[in-house]
Amino acid sequence: METKLRELKTLLAEVNDLESAGAVLQWDQSTYMPTGGAAARGRQLATLARLAHEKFTAPVIGKRLEELSRATADLPVDSDEASLIRVTRRDYERAVKVPAEFVARLSEHTAATYQAWTLARPANNFAAVRPFLEQTLDLSRQLADYFPGYEHIADPLIDYGDFGMTAKLIRQVFGELRQELVPLVQTITAQPLADDACLRQNFPEADQLAFGAAVIKRFGYDFERGRQDKTHHPFMTKFSLGDVRITTRCREDNLGEALFSTLHEAGHALYEQGIRPDFEATPLAGGTSSGVHESQSRTWENLVGRSRGFWEHFYPQLQAAFPSQLRRVPLEDFYRAINRVQRSLIRTDADEVTYNLHVLIRFDLELQLLEGKLAVKDLPAAWQARYQADLGLCAPADRDGVLQDVHWYGGIIGGNFQCYTLGNILSAQFYEAATQAQPGITAEIAAGQFQTLHGWLRENIYQHGRKFTATEIVQRVTGQPLTIAPYLRYLRRKYGELYRL
Amino acid sequence: METKLRELKTLLAEVNDLESAGAVLQWDQSTYMPTGGAAARGRQLATLARLAHEKFTAPVIGKRLEELSRATADLPVDSDEASLIRVTRRDYERAVKVPAEFVARLSEHTAATYQAWTLARPANNFAAVRPFLEQTLDLSRQLADYFPGYEHIADPLIDYGDFGMTAKLIRQVFGELRQELVPLVQTITAQPLADDACLRQNFPEADQLAFGAAVIKRFGYDFERGRQDKTHHPFMTKFSLGDVRITTRCREDNLGEALFSTLHEAGHALYEQGIRPDFEATPLAGGTSSGVHESQSRTWENLVGRSRGFWEHFYPQLQAAFPSQLRRVPLEDFYRAINRVQRSLIRTDADEVTYNLHVLIRFDLELQLLEGKLAVKDLPAAWQARYQADLGLCAPADRDGVLQDVHWYGGIIGGNFQCYTLGNILSAQFYEAATQAQPGITAEIAAGQFQTLHGWLRENIYQHGRKFTATEIVQRVTGQPLTIAPYLRYLRRKYGELYRL
Repeated sequence: METKLRELKTLLAEVNDLESAGAVLQWDQSTYMPTGGAAARGRQLATLARLAHEKFTAPVIGKRLEELSRATADLPVDSDEASLIRVTRRDYERAVKVPAEFVARLSEHTAATYQAWTLARPANNFAAVRPFLEQTLDLSRQLADYFPGYEHIADPLIDYGDFGMTAKLIRQVFGELRQELVPLVQTITAQPLADDACLRQNFPEADQLAFGAAVIKRFGYDFERGRQDKTHHPFMTKFSLGDVRITTRCREDNLGEALFSTLHEAGHALYEQGIRPDFEATPLAGGTSSGVHESQSRTWENLVGRSRGFWEHFYPQLQAAFPSQLRRVPLEDFYRAINRVQRSLIRTDADEVTYNLHVLIRFDLELQLLEGKLAVKDLPAAWQARYQADLGLCAPADRDGVLQDVHWYGGIIGGNFQCYTLGNILSAQFYEAATQAQPGITAEIAAGQFQTLHGWLRENIYQHGRKFTATEIVQRVTGQPLTIAPYLRYLRRKYGELYRL
Repeated sequence: METKLRELKTLLAEVNDLESAGAVLQWDQSTYMPTGGAAARGRQLATLARLAHEKFTAPVIGKRLEELSRATADLPVDSDEASLIRVTRRDYERAVKVPAEFVARLSEHTAATYQAWTLARPANNFAAVRPFLEQTLDLSRQLADYFPGYEHIADPLIDYGDFGMTAKLIRQVFGELRQELVPLVQTITAQPLADDACLRQNFPEADQLAFGAAVIKRFGYDFERGRQDKTHHPFMTKFSLGDVRITTRCREDNLGEALFSTLHEAGHALYEQGIRPDFEATPLAGGTSSGVHESQSRTWENLVGRSRGFWEHFYPQLQAAFPSQLRRVPLEDFYRAINRVQRSLIRTDADEVTYNLHVLIRFDLELQLLEGKLAVKDLPAAWQARYQADLGLCAPADRDGVLQDVHWYGGIIGGNFQCYTLGNILSAQFYEAATQAQPGITAEIAAGQFQTLHGWLRENIYQHGRKFTATEIVQRVTGQPLTIAPYLRYLRRKYGELYRL
């Protein structure tokens, strides 16, 4: 068994190397690549992705996995060996079900759609992408059909990011959440809008970046095993467990942009940096699901980074970094500004309270499209109707409506959005468990200390990588399945206090 | 034939993509990678190199090449199709002659040697690398022996970088050159040393980099198809014909460091950026030899960038960029400072006149080692003796002697150094042909214009990529074989005037 396991790991490391090389090329494309490199870069990325897929779906891997499944059958289910085989086998079986020819066709179509969207969005021209999106919907259904036996056609697509979750389960959870959120948003937004003018002064970029970097270093982000660069859209990417990078974008007229995207991406990175080093270059070396990943970015961005205690410690430092802008702004005003609740049209600009309503709209529309209950041609109207119903707003243009997110135009329809709200729900559920186990966490944060929280998350979540599924992790860590109660408690306590509800 | 050619090109593009991905990963390693990424990066690079080699030496490529050789036999030898097949076949036949197992062993040994050298050089400890170097010599001879039928054992090794050149030919040319250079150096260095204190003031990095970038933009370096970053050692690298990057290093107490390395690497980059776009992703898309490549870096660095005419135009701009440092320094003093001739121990710091003596020493020692006439244990003493004989200098420590260059410790012994002096010789030979064909070039340079020179080089050299060999290019462009006469004329004219010889 030892020899076969070693052989399998060598084969998997090769796949990992090709995927990591692709990640480096993508990172470079977003950060430093000159425009002239675009055409060849697309081809290089396609080659790496194709070779990684070919290598991973090679029959020798299937054979080794089968042999090693038998050989590890008697090991405890949470042993490293059994976990590696189980998780790899799950990936393998998913990968071999989709013909390479289909993967290539989908990827070609996606690239063309993305290209069309980059022109259609500024031109506010949904009609231009409609035929692309119709084909995307067809391809998304075809993709699901490579996994027969599903209960809902979206289930196999949700599985890619959030293994074990189903449309039915998520729909139920999101339905309950919506029932609570819509009236909460109404109550809060009936009050006068908080003033965030203090965030909208001029803040030199270098000082903003230095402040953000100092904060995430305190969080525990290891700059010896990562770095931060600027990109159009912030992201986290990993080339190895020793090289987990983040990016941000900076607006000198908005203090929140770089700061909170930095804390957000650092949350993703803390997860990856915290994975057990001996999982390196295996399928275990990653976050266990999109939802759990997002729970960590939201924990460090919101539960920590938008909390009163956090700013009790850091606000004097922020004032010292920007004295002329913030010297005369009291902590309370700043705290209200960074937690201002406002119904808005754009998801990525939304506050903690309204954010999920944006997500729920998209999730429901995805399901309706896949179910055949909504035609692509009727999508803009359906979008408008839901924004009217849930947020009381009407987008003046599709550019700020159905064209706003890249997801449908850069991938498939299905499984794209649930992770954001699952992440919010889980962030509160995990955080409640953390503070129950370690009640000192809150006081530590107010003293600018994060070791206990970071240590607890690393011990209970990060180190395991993909060894346990999201469902298993939630149960292990909180003793319960996924539940919205802690999240609602968190929102009600924080915003109840802020808005004296 | 069309179909088979297309198929071959697809296979070659895949190899190219893997190699280009490796180049991106190497660039990242030198520019931005955090230290924690090192271990995995080594493995990733090895995987990409191995896969590229496997793909390139696949029998299907050999088969297609054979078929297409027959199919293109009647085409003109300089047709694109015949050239692609000829050049690819040459690479293929070389690649398949060396067993993959040997390549892996050599690469492993090289990595270990490099590691040992990085410690041995600062510790001035040749004994620590001696056993490594002895094995390197064995492996270098073995490598040569995969190419039986050579006249000199170094010939197959020289062939890697400078196809068509032989130890015999180079030895003869270098011997003639040495005969002229040694007395020239003696005459010049008998005179008082030029004063270069004006270069050794404080020059803020950002201003240095901005000035260098402005100059190479004027040369014709296309920043839309490239960029410049900082590294420990400057280099040029190419990810595609649309993405040719350079790096530099900057010392705030030395104006020459960043400036001339920028002009040098830009020269390499102009060559690659000038290759015909339809050669993209084929073996034709590269410089034809190390020597011809170096001729272009030296042209733009020295023949242009250290010329009096060039500075007649640019010196006022440099003074404007650094007014407090250079306002009171006359052009003539500056010109003498950047062309100061001084016998020194370190090759990379050497001036135009003494530089080749450093190269010749290394070239001769490589041959003696390969011939078995010099043992590795006697290398430090042999090094010292030649520096004494040729430059009248004795290195106080091996750190500044036999340990100074990375080449032997990061690769094989053989074929490493000839390109530098071939480049110098060729730079003058090409430049003389250029100015004979376009006599306006000199006046244009003195007006800060480079279009005619750049256009001539692109037309006659750059665009062809690897279509013609170095030998063919020299003959086509200058009507003669490689000859040292133009280079000696150039040195005698320039330094004769400077030193009133």
